[in-house]
Amino acid sequence: MKQACVVEVGPRDGFQSVKEFIPIEIKLAVIDGLVGAGLGRIQVTSFVSPKAIPQMQDAAQIVNRVLDKHPSTEFFALTPNLKGAKAAAESGLKEICVVLSLSESHNMANVRQTVEQSVEGIAVIRQELPDMKISVDIATVFGCPFEGQMEIPPLIDLIGKLSESGMDSFTLCDTICVAYPSQVKTVFSAVESAFPVHVFGAHIHDTRNMGVMNSYVSLQNGAQSVQTSVAGLGGCPFAPGASGNTATEDFVYLLEKEGYSTGVNFSKLLDTAKYLKSNVPSGNYSGHHINIQD
Amino acid sequence: MKQACVVEVGPRDGFQSVKEFIPIEIKLAVIDGLVGAGLGRIQVTSFVSPKAIPQMQDAAQIVNRVLDKHPSTEFFALTPNLKGAKAAAESGLKEICVVLSLSESHNMANVRQTVEQSVEGIAVIRQELPDMKISVDIATVFGCPFEGQMEIPPLIDLIGKLSESGMDSFTLCDTICVAYPSQVKTVFSAVESAFPVHVFGAHIHDTRNMGVMNSYVSLQNGAQSVQTSVAGLGGCPFAPGASGNTATEDFVYLLEKEGYSTGVNFSKLLDTAKYLKSNVPSGNYSGHHINIQD
Repeated sequence: MKQACVVEVGPRDGFQSVKEFIPIEIKLAVIDGLVGAGLGRIQVTSFVSPKAIPQMQDAAQIVNRVLDKHPSTEFFALTPNLKGAKAAAESGLKEICVVLSLSESHNMANVRQTVEQSVEGIAVIRQELPDMKISVDIATVFGCPFEGQMEIPPLIDLIGKLSESGMDSFTLCDTICVAYPSQVKTVFSAVESAFPVHVFGAHIHDTRNMGVMNSYVSLQNGAQSVQTSVAGLGGCPFAPGASGNTATEDFVYLLEKEGYSTGVNFSKLLDTAKYLKSNVPSGNYSGHHINIQD
Repeated sequence: MKQACVVEVGPRDGFQSVKEFIPIEIKLAVIDGLVGAGLGRIQVTSFVSPKAIPQMQDAAQIVNRVLDKHPSTEFFALTPNLKGAKAAAESGLKEICVVLSLSESHNMANVRQTVEQSVEGIAVIRQELPDMKISVDIATVFGCPFEGQMEIPPLIDLIGKLSESGMDSFTLCDTICVAYPSQVKTVFSAVESAFPVHVFGAHIHDTRNMGVMNSYVSLQNGAQSVQTSVAGLGGCPFAPGASGNTATEDFVYLLEKEGYSTGVNFSKLLDTAKYLKSNVPSGNYSGHHINIQD
């Protein structure tokens, strides 16, 4: 049976998109539900300035509550800088992901650094936290709000530079949701071919109704994991009101139909998605199964 | 450039799903918008008992208003029986589609006939209206609410029987929205191989977030046309509240990205989709682009 690794990012990417603060007990109930449904890798929070993103102010508490409770689940957090990475380490997490953009102008707009400065910053995090497992989210791989569709050679260059700092795991992100299937295929084939021992994952939004398809195409072309968000919560901050993340349960449903083993119990996962939607009604949900009445 | 034929079914399948009566001027404005956007084939209404489906009571008026106004557009109507087919002919339409189910139990539940009786009924329509262009919608090809996933040999048999009555154009419908990509590929490859001179189209819903992907897979595997609904209005009557039809504008967007020529102006089409959503707010819309704020 074909194996597929579905990485849940709802507790970070999804929750972060909700304006009003979600009580920690609801967050923990969702995480418990995800673990109970069999999701083995979960991006559980972000260690970021609480002023910048108040929704993530409970990061350390979340980690504290889940690590002991679910020892066999791989939890990781997004950390935008060294400070966040150190806070994640202090919380007890063994894994983080860091972020930079392929597009120079998007990186500047997002973190006020050149791409080269971001690469150096990641190298410093790598050196400062030698025992931490670190993967790199590369934003705007498929398109940039300022520069349009991105080319593959600069992506290969960038991955090469990050490799020199010891990075070997990358998530290619469709930040503004403009990827299309043949492009996804070309990009994943290219990076797989250039870096055969590295690990690549995909994070592709559903804003233009291609999230499930693009995620599936990535899996068929070398992506070793696909990031999705329970109930499809979250999405592209550049497109307010638009459909958001690829919904974990919708993607798992496809994978099961296509004969993949995901380790996920679809029915339990759908229950968790419905729990989330009813307890955080103001969220932006793009999942389809949550609308089907039994 | 690759060509793709996108067939618009919103004015029938979409409007029919809306409970309150849509004023004819709004219906006509949507149809005008679709024609203006370049949709060359439109399922424009259904000639069905107004008691059964009050929304379609203006069928003859609709046809009367659009035929002269848009002489180069191919309009056709769905007709459930000989009476409807004759009414369509009287309205001036040159083309209709008729319907039956692959699944015996679904056909019985739907039209209280055996599949054989439906095949005979279609043969009578064919004989009675020799000048009418007629295509056949085959329902439950990918799955039936009573019988589960359907097999291919009975489908080949059924198409063979319909061929004997002179039918040569078929739309394979995912009535309850359970199709998945490898199944779509297998089914279209099988019918193409068994009936190389016949014409096959696809009509696949988006209830489980695979409408765009399944429709695309059908096109890549022999479907000569794909039916979609503007704004994604409509969908599966077996799943109230669920996401519905594959949205025409979402599918056209994909096709453009993939280098297909559709003859459709995406921007004008999106305007029409947004017009529809704001003028018929109670509809069930599954399109994604309509939610993206400019």
